[in-house]
Amino acid sequence: MRTELECIPCLLRQSLEAARFVTEDPAIHELVMRETLRTVADLDFLESPPTIAQVVHRRLRELTGDPDPYRSAKAAANRLVMALLPELAADVERAPDPLLAAVRLAIAGNVIDLAITADLTEAVTCRALQDASREPFHGEWTEFRRALADATDILYLADNAGEIVTDRLLIEQIGPARVTMAVRGHAVINDATLADARDVGLCELVEVVSNGSDAPGTILDDCDASFRERFRNADLLIAKGQGNFETLSHAEDDEDTKDGVFFLFKVKCPVVAGQVNLPVGSQALVQAHPTRPVLDPGTA
Amino acid sequence: MRTELECIPCLLRQSLEAARFVTEDPAIHELVMRETLRTVADLDFLESPPTIAQVVHRRLRELTGDPDPYRSAKAAANRLVMALLPELAADVERAPDPLLAAVRLAIAGNVIDLAITADLTEAVTCRALQDASREPFHGEWTEFRRALADATDILYLADNAGEIVTDRLLIEQIGPARVTMAVRGHAVINDATLADARDVGLCELVEVVSNGSDAPGTILDDCDASFRERFRNADLLIAKGQGNFETLSHAEDDEDTKDGVFFLFKVKCPVVAGQVNLPVGSQALVQAHPTRPVLDPGTA
Repeated sequence: MRTELECIPCLLRQSLEAARFVTEDPAIHELVMRETLRTVADLDFLESPPTIAQVVHRRLRELTGDPDPYRSAKAAANRLVMALLPELAADVERAPDPLLAAVRLAIAGNVIDLAITADLTEAVTCRALQDASREPFHGEWTEFRRALADATDILYLADNAGEIVTDRLLIEQIGPARVTMAVRGHAVINDATLADARDVGLCELVEVVSNGSDAPGTILDDCDASFRERFRNADLLIAKGQGNFETLSHAEDDEDTKDGVFFLFKVKCPVVAGQVNLPVGSQALVQAHPTRPVLDPGTA
Repeated sequence: MRTELECIPCLLRQSLEAARFVTEDPAIHELVMRETLRTVADLDFLESPPTIAQVVHRRLRELTGDPDPYRSAKAAANRLVMALLPELAADVERAPDPLLAAVRLAIAGNVIDLAITADLTEAVTCRALQDASREPFHGEWTEFRRALADATDILYLADNAGEIVTDRLLIEQIGPARVTMAVRGHAVINDATLADARDVGLCELVEVVSNGSDAPGTILDDCDASFRERFRNADLLIAKGQGNFETLSHAEDDEDTKDGVFFLFKVKCPVVAGQVNLPVGSQALVQAHPTRPVLDPGTA
């Protein structure tokens, strides 16, 4: 997804919130804002918004000397959702369709996103998880269920700490043996890394790999070779969160986008809402529909 | 008032809305956004936000070749409030305190501001004017009434087209003989110019002068010499709108700010709300309190 002009004020707001989240030093706040303004001024708008967030957060880590400024926020989110896990697991088991309940819970968990609002409260998180089955849900559910039934090698691209505890419930429904979970290669915002996966016991349930990148999304050129190979070889991709949607949703010039990507996320902004034609706040289950023509119909 | 870091996302949003308001050409939208980003990146943040808006709107007029892109919007606002004038005048006359009613109506008229939201509707404007006496009002009313009683040479700094029709009711209460109204020197956003004052018959009621500037506020260095002289000589200044507040409110290093400035405006953003300690949406009547020390107490 390209960066729309509407994304620009939002990227600057997010940069300011991030700077204030990671340090109280007003000189750093101002420096980061000036640098973000210059970076966006020269941006190729065909790049996706997480490209900017990656630059901003790298710089914030450099300026603060803190390699992981969201460490304690991530640990708190992991603890919070782990504490809710038994109740959430029971909700899934009791549901008329446990797979659907787990999908909706995993999407509801995507509320735990400090990129969009740095002042997310525990109360908001708890309410989102408890209301998971009542939030508006729109998606290609039949297609997703069918794709799941056929898949043998599923790559599950995680998004945030805390949220990965809800992913656990979905992976248990899918069957962990055929799933590999991928997390970010380095700390960025509150996105989940290997440390978070270990923290919530996911490494004991499922194979977890790093993507090698510090982008808050999946910029394939920025990921390491072993991740890219897994990405190419998987027969089903499940991608959580707007960052993964923004970086992997189909674009005519995107050679790396493939069929069979299902995006699971909360719709958090009007630009993405317009792209998927759903209201802000919706739970979205959206299949990628590459728009580029099939070059060789014989192989389709 | 300096530009706060929170103002930056808002300035970019306003620039985009303005670009889209004045032209449908996406190349101009993108160009204006890139130029605004570069201008803000290098801005001295001691400058006020209208400094940026002045640059953006000059550039939009240059790029579109239209010296007054808001012309028809201004004419429509003038017509709309003129149509309501008899009813509003009757409300003022019937009020227990007609001066207070006129002050509140003049502040309510400040809703007609296309800088903040380009998609202001007639319905919103009508409701704001009809509810003028019921909106939350906070102000230094006693001080204002006292200052008015003593003043002989009042300079009234207007803000927007349409809104100037509500100013007319206040000027009638004050007594037009001791009032001079100042409008912008050139078209910028929907700010009132001499053409608007003529359009609504203000020139027949009161002396109206241009300030010589195309800033959406009163940047004294940018105003012409005759306006600056009137500004210095007036014994009471009434300044309408956030733009005038942002450019004229006291700053320690501002040599031009004087006692006796009363700002009348709707509080439209969190930054200004914080400065005047009033909620967004309030009607504000705020006296300037210069913070710089009196250099020669003997002359005070």
